Amino acid sequence: MAAWWSAGDTMNVKPAKTPDWVAADWGTSHLRLWLMAENGQVLHRLHSAAGMGTLTPDGYEPELLRLLEGTLPAEGALDVICCGMAGAAQGWAEAPYAAAPCPPPGPAEAVQPALETPRLRVFILPGVKQIADSDVMRGEETQIAGFLAAHPGYDGMLCLPGTHSKWARVRDGKIEGFRTFMTGELFALLSSRSVLRHTTNSDGWDEAAFEAAVSDIMAAPADLTGKLFGLRAGPLLTGMPPETARARLSGLLIGAELAATRKDWQALPVALIGENSLAQAYAEALALKGHAPTLVNTEDMTLGGLKAARRQLQG
Amino acid sequence: MAAWWSAGDTMNVKPAKTPDWVAADWGTSHLRLWLMAENGQVLHRLHSAAGMGTLTPDGYEPELLRLLEGTLPAEGALDVICCGMAGAAQGWAEAPYAAAPCPPPGPAEAVQPALETPRLRVFILPGVKQIADSDVMRGEETQIAGFLAAHPGYDGMLCLPGTHSKWARVRDGKIEGFRTFMTGELFALLSSRSVLRHTTNSDGWDEAAFEAAVSDIMAAPADLTGKLFGLRAGPLLTGMPPETARARLSGLLIGAELAATRKDWQALPVALIGENSLAQAYAEALALKGHAPTLVNTEDMTLGGLKAARRQLQG
Repeated sequence: MAAWWSAGDTMNVKPAKTPDWVAADWGTSHLRLWLMAENGQVLHRLHSAAGMGTLTPDGYEPELLRLLEGTLPAEGALDVICCGMAGAAQGWAEAPYAAAPCPPPGPAEAVQPALETPRLRVFILPGVKQIADSDVMRGEETQIAGFLAAHPGYDGMLCLPGTHSKWARVRDGKIEGFRTFMTGELFALLSSRSVLRHTTNSDGWDEAAFEAAVSDIMAAPADLTGKLFGLRAGPLLTGMPPETARARLSGLLIGAELAATRKDWQALPVALIGENSLAQAYAEALALKGHAPTLVNTEDMTLGGLKAARRQLQG
Repeated sequence: MAAWWSAGDTMNVKPAKTPDWVAADWGTSHLRLWLMAENGQVLHRLHSAAGMGTLTPDGYEPELLRLLEGTLPAEGALDVICCGMAGAAQGWAEAPYAAAPCPPPGPAEAVQPALETPRLRVFILPGVKQIADSDVMRGEETQIAGFLAAHPGYDGMLCLPGTHSKWARVRDGKIEGFRTFMTGELFALLSSRSVLRHTTNSDGWDEAAFEAAVSDIMAAPADLTGKLFGLRAGPLLTGMPPETARARLSGLLIGAELAATRKDWQALPVALIGENSLAQAYAEALALKGHAPTLVNTEDMTLGGLKAARRQLQG
């Protein structure tokens, strides 16, 4: 689990000075750190595969110390502001959910785990829950905070594609409500663990098949579990190539999500928080239906949310 | 992989005489044999775990000979009539699909694999394909043949719940068309491989939760992939017990299938081919919507279909 030091807009050597604070996104399968200067500049990016899924509570502090070795102050404490699954009940220290409708929670609601070292002060930001239609997020609320910092007064939907895609209604600086779809996890399970693994095994892509599948399922969303088996039978009977079946699987699942959220994105602006091919696929699917979402970068939003929390912490 | 000899309506010792013929259901994960008397009596039932999934083409004949040891005739050949995945391209010998609309295929369309032994004659019945909306079945067509033998002139829907549930439109002795739903496989994947495994891990059942989930999803079938995540968030936030989440998962998936087939079962009689708790769940879900399906036994239908093929073979 070696850390890597990125090239690009950051320096590729150890920083000349101690960072002023550290921004952290500690998810289920990864930890990302940004060593920050007070002026908002990223001095370094660090990455580790020691996500919540691999750690017991006593493993978090040593992992942070390992990654931050050589950058801790000689005296005083470095602030680490952290979002994500580190705050789950099974994480480092539980940061109880804020209840929507609410603004994305800030450092006043953060939990501070007890530490061995006096050289760190860690703030873990809570996730957000919704009681009426039970739902939860951890990490996405910080991306939303970053979006709101960059777009104050935004009134519309935010879509965060992923393993568990989120659609959040945002207004007056608050998350009013949200819905989670298992789109990404279903794609992974069906394409690697189900009978469809034999016919969707491809690195390729068929854009026309993706678009046709989005339209098919949006016209008849009840047919999802039936249309899925066509990705087994179609290749058997018609020689449908695997890149076509794979793109169609993606289109059926994303199209089903768009069918379920149709009222929202037809009535309101949509911003997509993402940067990879998945977010592009959502943007294309929405474009097919005549909607042009704003696309913003996940890292920028996460970091923007953590910077906003830092500003609140400094009062 | 020992064979077992059932008690019940069959003898529990080796048969006093060579069976007149053998009925076989050779699926992906199992092989079932019925040693038959000419009058239709089952002399013995045999079972083996040597399904298609574990065999190469040269493994089928030895497995049959092993199970049938001591019951082969001294001269001449014993007929074995077989349905299921043994006839798949990756099975023993490919029995090409009949194309719907068609009657369930019989011995005239069966493939006879080449054998080492002169003491057996094996007929593998084909499955059925549908070209327009690509779909396939192998094994279910024989259950349908058994149902038609017992209910000549049936005009309606047949529902065969399972890993890949089938709904077939049957009229004038023909399978006019059919649709497959991945309901059973999705239930298995979601309850054992997805994030929902943590909250649906139970041997219990909550009938009220099942019924509520059927109604919920039938009222808004587009919401399936969104409502699934509620089975993670609900237990986290409200302490929903695992038997409730598990029953609700089943209700959401079966309800989605009923939403997709609504036009069919609202307009036509439905017979369910099944005998286990899964078929009961389908019957209860349909009863909720005011429909009373006929429930028939899977083994009876499979055996009935193989007996019908035997009669055709004898001319």
